[in-house]
Amino acid sequence: MSKALEYAAQLEKLDCRAMYNQDFYWTWDKNDDELAAVFQVADALRDLRERGKSTRIFDSGLGISIFRDNSTRTRFSFVSACNLLGLAAQDLDEKKSQIAHGETVRETANMVSFMADVIGIRDDMFIGEGHKYQKTFMDAVDRGSRHGILEQRPTLVNLQCDVDHPTQCMADLDSVIHYFGGVENLKGKKVAMTWAYSPSYGKPLSVPQGVIGLFTRFGMDVVLAHPEGYDVMGGIEDIAKRNAEASGGSFTKVNSMEEAFQDADIVYPKSWAPYAAMVKRTALYREGDQAGIDVLEQEMLENNARFKNWSCTEDMMKLTKNGKALYMHCLPADITGLSCPEGEVADSVFDRYMDLLYKEASYKPYIIAAMIFLAKVKDPAAAIRALDAQAGPRKRF
Amino acid sequence: MSKALEYAAQLEKLDCRAMYNQDFYWTWDKNDDELAAVFQVADALRDLRERGKSTRIFDSGLGISIFRDNSTRTRFSFVSACNLLGLAAQDLDEKKSQIAHGETVRETANMVSFMADVIGIRDDMFIGEGHKYQKTFMDAVDRGSRHGILEQRPTLVNLQCDVDHPTQCMADLDSVIHYFGGVENLKGKKVAMTWAYSPSYGKPLSVPQGVIGLFTRFGMDVVLAHPEGYDVMGGIEDIAKRNAEASGGSFTKVNSMEEAFQDADIVYPKSWAPYAAMVKRTALYREGDQAGIDVLEQEMLENNARFKNWSCTEDMMKLTKNGKALYMHCLPADITGLSCPEGEVADSVFDRYMDLLYKEASYKPYIIAAMIFLAKVKDPAAAIRALDAQAGPRKRF
Amino acid sequence: MSKALEYAAQLEKLDCRAMYNQDFYWTWDKNDDELAAVFQVADALRDLRERGKSTRIFDSGLGISIFRDNSTRTRFSFVSACNLLGLAAQDLDEKKSQIAHGETVRETANMVSFMADVIGIRDDMFIGEGHKYQKTFMDAVDRGSRHGILEQRPTLVNLQCDVDHPTQCMADLDSVIHYFGGVENLKGKKVAMTWAYSPSYGKPLSVPQGVIGLFTRFGMDVVLAHPEGYDVMGGIEDIAKRNAEASGGSFTKVNSMEEAFQDADIVYPKSWAPYAAMVKRTALYREGDQAGIDVLEQEMLENNARFKNWSCTEDMMKLTKNGKALYMHCLPADITGLSCPEGEVADSVFDRYMDLLYKEASYKPYIIAAMIFLAKVKDPAAAIRALDAQAGPRKRF
Repeated sequence: MSKALEYAAQLEKLDCRAMYNQDFYWTWDKNDDELAAVFQVADALRDLRERGKSTRIFDSGLGISIFRDNSTRTRFSFVSACNLLGLAAQDLDEKKSQIAHGETVRETANMVSFMADVIGIRDDMFIGEGHKYQKTFMDAVDRGSRHGILEQRPTLVNLQCDVDHPTQCMADLDSVIHYFGGVENLKGKKVAMTWAYSPSYGKPLSVPQGVIGLFTRFGMDVVLAHPEGYDVMGGIEDIAKRNAEASGGSFTKVNSMEEAFQDADIVYPKSWAPYAAMVKRTALYREGDQAGIDVLEQEMLENNARFKNWSCTEDMMKLTKNGKALYMHCLPADITGLSCPEGEVADSVFDRYMDLLYKEASYKPYIIAAMIFLAKVKDPAAAIRALDAQAGPRKRF
Repeated sequence: MSKALEYAAQLEKLDCRAMYNQDFYWTWDKNDDELAAVFQVADALRDLRERGKSTRIFDSGLGISIFRDNSTRTRFSFVSACNLLGLAAQDLDEKKSQIAHGETVRETANMVSFMADVIGIRDDMFIGEGHKYQKTFMDAVDRGSRHGILEQRPTLVNLQCDVDHPTQCMADLDSVIHYFGGVENLKGKKVAMTWAYSPSYGKPLSVPQGVIGLFTRFGMDVVLAHPEGYDVMGGIEDIAKRNAEASGGSFTKVNSMEEAFQDADIVYPKSWAPYAAMVKRTALYREGDQAGIDVLEQEMLENNARFKNWSCTEDMMKLTKNGKALYMHCLPADITGLSCPEGEVADSVFDRYMDLLYKEASYKPYIIAAMIFLAKVKDPAAAIRALDAQAGPRKRF
Repeated sequence: MSKALEYAAQLEKLDCRAMYNQDFYWTWDKNDDELAAVFQVADALRDLRERGKSTRIFDSGLGISIFRDNSTRTRFSFVSACNLLGLAAQDLDEKKSQIAHGETVRETANMVSFMADVIGIRDDMFIGEGHKYQKTFMDAVDRGSRHGILEQRPTLVNLQCDVDHPTQCMADLDSVIHYFGGVENLKGKKVAMTWAYSPSYGKPLSVPQGVIGLFTRFGMDVVLAHPEGYDVMGGIEDIAKRNAEASGGSFTKVNSMEEAFQDADIVYPKSWAPYAAMVKRTALYREGDQAGIDVLEQEMLENNARFKNWSCTEDMMKLTKNGKALYMHCLPADITGLSCPEGEVADSVFDRYMDLLYKEASYKPYIIAAMIFLAKVKDPAAAIRALDAQAGPRKRF
């Protein structure tokens, strides 16, 4: 029996019917079965691909992407996922760095969705705005499809908002599942999601938020570590706490990288901006106060510089479980002596984990494809089995 | 019998053989049967799509777009139309805001058309130049395909030139046909194509020209209204007059928005630039006289501002037939209090017609696809019937 | 028997097995059978296309392009080749005009290659860097595919580096083969690859290098002509000499356009920058010395201006064999009185050869497709025969 068929068998036991025709905003919107289904479908699609099978479920159709912030990895993951399923990817190149108005969003949403089966949106720059943009957009296409404007209701895949980065964190977790040989082996593992120094400004909070909101669901001991003031959204910490209680894991906060790294099985050191500063920045953008933005940026950089010792050095790695924790990053990392003089991680550490980091990233196209698959296919287990049995080769000859 | 088959039956009665391998520049190049054929095919493709049928007629091939002016709606409509038929869309990102030279156009035309089945061009900025660009381009690929350079002769779909905007106006009219329950119900309807105030400068004339050149062919009473000086191309007014005579409708001109709106069944209030100013602007661009362009822009804005009362307010709408005329716009509209302090239309009017406006826009991908279909398929009625009978689902599972 | 089947029969006699899963950097990496195989497959694909046959060998998959220098022709050739074979083309829009760092290249290479079957790269601006970029990129995806990050190893098609421009030169040669009625007719033909004046600065050397490195393999008498100082890479001249010896042709250098044109069967007059200046420029870019770059540019323009008589005029053409040599150019040419006051070629000469020049360019999509085909298909002759026999039409109806 192929791996794909094994995954299909697992999938059959899960109740993921509610995902049909639904959107993927945040992992905490989804129940455990639904997240498990994403992993099973992602892994099944990967197995089919590895065996040269076509996984096209669409004969035609469009996947529309809107990147309101820069992206290479996620952009190509989205394009890859669309191609894997038979959709053509088309990007809407909007002006960046400005907060969109609801009315414009509503109109644009319909105007680009005439043949759209999927909408992928990244809008992570403005706290309190990113998710709102996605929601406004999807409400508009929802209305559009109910009112006969659109022949199909496209599905949202959140490619990063101000709150969560689900395609990243789900790919991260899928790589962790494979690294530790199964989701059942995650219980009790210590995860250090820690802030790290970077000589840049205003990195989104959605990765740390997404990680603590997701990893706490698998019985792991998740530690969030950051210098004082670098808080993430309080609501997400509450979610992490509830998740940990439900899953038999734990969620704790510390203000020391060393403490977080101590005996950790997994470390995820990554820079982000303080929540309060991001709120302030969003207000300044809304007012168009460029001078204020410049002052704030300067303050934030100076504040960052007080915490240059928050770096994933070899010494720091030695603190982890047997000195061999799994080092994770969403990429690109700020690498000391390579991409910057002082950064998030030592060159030698990064280099040692390079294959694992690239492998981590390689799950993202499959995670995105799985999210689309589950929203578009009524009986996903049957579809996987059919693809395994009947699908032609992706490449003839 | 499916709707698609009904449309195919209608199509069979029309003589559209001359459209095979031909281009679509202007609606007045086409006879009545040919225009009717576009609507039948567009509606048939929409029905097939709604029923989840694949409408791919191409296994591979390219649709090349060239936007020499900004576009979101038409861009996505073109991409959607290509995808609907199985073509991959590829944009040629040319430098905008400059008048192209014939030799360069000829060379580029061949260089981007190696595998092109369709060419979609927007060039609406320069009076006297937009159509010329398209014609030069198509003459070059015509020669290219006759001389063995290109394996296929791509078909032009005019995505807006300085003279006509046929994909817009045909989509507009298709939405009108559906709104009034059939083309036979259009006779005697009053259409007010009127200028409206906008705080911007230099909007193309191709929409009002396209509307008066097309709507006059269906027995409607078309009124063109604008402030003195905001004339459109005289030649198009002549076409509108001849059309009206032939179709049993009428074409009149007034200088009052109120008069045009009085008892109108349809109103299309939209800003455009005076023809004479656009001619002057083109000359200034040709000479590269930026100072002259700036002066002209200032003059035009000041002149516009004298006509702020040309706005589609609630009071204005009350003048229309039962106060309930169909409000139309090619989008995006300049909405008073929303996208600008004073604009083409009141917020409450726009909001009330929003679904109808989006529906109007939603015909455009199908209109474009129909134009391509009729140029590429020898027996379109038979092809529609075959798609209805044999085509697989667009989405498996 | 179709032409495609005749080409397949020829192909069968050639040993091109080593091309399977390999990259195409330079023509001189490939043996004679391998080059011949590219021409046979290119011509076979063209015949299939002309007869309306589908040549899709991929059901899905991506062709990634990276243009680190401007391109229209090659960009559309690559997109066309991908489409011809069933791949979706996706461009990575990198910042241009900067030398990339190895670590970044390695990471990007994997991040964009998740579903990539083909990678097309143009990096021709910096001597000593263009090929290095491609090699670093491909080493990274090679590792990525061996280490389970990528499910397939993409194939490189060099879309122009600092050393060679193989898709251009192979297309050039394919057009020459067809022009002279067969590769067997090339022996003894005189080819003048000559420098020509252009009012621009820093054109790459890869075309003249590619031409002398390739055309010398077919028994032709290749003359490289340029003003003193406008040398190309010495190593490539050595390759040209060895090729000429092996093929029974000759390779000579002269400093006179007239001498090169004398009795030539083929002339290829084209501007390029002196090798030494390009080396200097690369060093200045590496140091970020913009002032130095500006000074160098000025010097180079002034030096160019000393050789305005190196132009392909009617008088110059009269020197060629019967005054009727085949005039070639990779396009766009700098045409005297048309695109510039004084340039590479007279308007009347260019105009007379226009169809042949466009035809020359039209081979490029097929050459690129053939390079991909030979890297992806295990038994290319059998595949061509199967496409000829079984493939459906590219366009239904």
